[in-house]
Amino acid sequence: MKKIGKLDWAFSGGNIPFDSTGEEPMFNSHDKIAVLNISEEEAEIEIFIFYENQAPVGTYEVEIQPKRLRKIRINDLIDPEAVRLERNYGCYIRSNVPVVIQFSRMNTGQNAAAIMGSMAFPTE
Amino acid sequence: MKKIGKLDWAFSGGNIPFDSTGEEPMFNSHDKIAVLNISEEEAEIEIFIFYENQAPVGTYEVEIQPKRLRKIRINDLIDPEAVRLERNYGCYIRSNVPVVIQFSRMNTGQNAAAIMGSMAFPTE
Amino acid sequence: MKKIGKLDWAFSGGNIPFDSTGEEPMFNSHDKIAVLNISEEEAEIEIFIFYENQAPVGTYEVEIQPKRLRKIRINDLIDPEAVRLERNYGCYIRSNVPVVIQFSRMNTGQNAAAIMGSMAFPTE
Amino acid sequence: MKKIGKLDWAFSGGNIPFDSTGEEPMFNSHDKIAVLNISEEEAEIEIFIFYENQAPVGTYEVEIQPKRLRKIRINDLIDPEAVRLERNYGCYIRSNVPVVIQFSRMNTGQNAAAIMGSMAFPTE
Repeated sequence: MKKIGKLDWAFSGGNIPFDSTGEEPMFNSHDKIAVLNISEEEAEIEIFIFYENQAPVGTYEVEIQPKRLRKIRINDLIDPEAVRLERNYGCYIRSNVPVVIQFSRMNTGQNAAAIMGSMAFPTE
Repeated sequence: MKKIGKLDWAFSGGNIPFDSTGEEPMFNSHDKIAVLNISEEEAEIEIFIFYENQAPVGTYEVEIQPKRLRKIRINDLIDPEAVRLERNYGCYIRSNVPVVIQFSRMNTGQNAAAIMGSMAFPTE
Repeated sequence: MKKIGKLDWAFSGGNIPFDSTGEEPMFNSHDKIAVLNISEEEAEIEIFIFYENQAPVGTYEVEIQPKRLRKIRINDLIDPEAVRLERNYGCYIRSNVPVVIQFSRMNTGQNAAAIMGSMAFPTE
Repeated sequence: MKKIGKLDWAFSGGNIPFDSTGEEPMFNSHDKIAVLNISEEEAEIEIFIFYENQAPVGTYEVEIQPKRLRKIRINDLIDPEAVRLERNYGCYIRSNVPVVIQFSRMNTGQNAAAIMGSMAFPTE
């Protein structure tokens, strides 16, 4: 199968609100990235979070099994440190094998999905 | 006419909810792909669905007539097996001729449309 | 100034609903394309509309002055024939100079904007 | 670290409504661009605003520190002149170092985010 996807992805419009009207975790406001690994190798991705007024934080490391999808809540990135609430942030993700990434936001029921697909930056 | 489109498309942010508040099929929650075949040849596309915790399923085969549009509900993909409800999924689509694909989601009236356009992966 | 934009654009997810709850034209459901011509030449674009069950219709011709923006309602495309209501459609647009195009949809107040930006197809 | 991003960005679907039902600045309707500068150099960006019926306005100049995110409200662009309310506009942005840009719109609570990501125009 052809190599499908890109090694480098980035988006600039992240924000995790502090207050959420959702009553269950499922409906809380959140930012998520969905990583699709079509390849036959495990994908090891490194995530870097950029802020407006402080140094970037990273490396958050996540693995995605071969031929699998993985959804990652930005809220769940806690090592080396939790992503700050109520701050704007940007994100740069690099992978060792080509992957397909979408960034989605749920603002308590509103899904401005698929933002990130447009921001594939090929390595060459 | 020039060749317009790409052979390979993918998205990672799919999800078909189980419950839907829509009262008619038209308003049910659904994920759709819209395939535009501008060429003068029939397009034969192959769809592969990827999940979080199980092996990918495919090949779903669909044809699009020359110079025609075709909308495909992910719900209607049943051979070799129905796409699972309430699961996150990703999707890889390949075509024998260049096509233009958009992925859209209606969450009972909310249309986070055109997600997929951004995820064209040229073959070379 | 550098050449900014692309000659060829397409999207596959168009649909003009028949019924609209908006009470004024401004709030009616509509699909629009916004064409930005940064160049110093007039842009002459040709629009082709593709349907599911009939031959494509075109050429709709529109000009955009140099260094200007132009918004075009799909509803306003009437020559050679009006775009059909309540039908899915796709769209291919070509220009004689590079332009930047976004496709937006307002479903009676809901703006699934900027769909099309992701679908630039360079000519080479 | 690899160079991540593009030098040239553009979008065509801007509009700043005059009336807004939001009661606080935070909820007012607005258009924003989010610029992510992953590089180790300060990014100097130049913004040009294009209208339907008048000459483009610019250059708006903004800097983004190395390894930082910066959100810019279009409303806050006032030098050489404020961006016009209730007018459609397009935008061209160029940077001296590669950056990642998203355009987002909040229509009093509705976020049609991430429009712009899809419109990266590499310089070569």
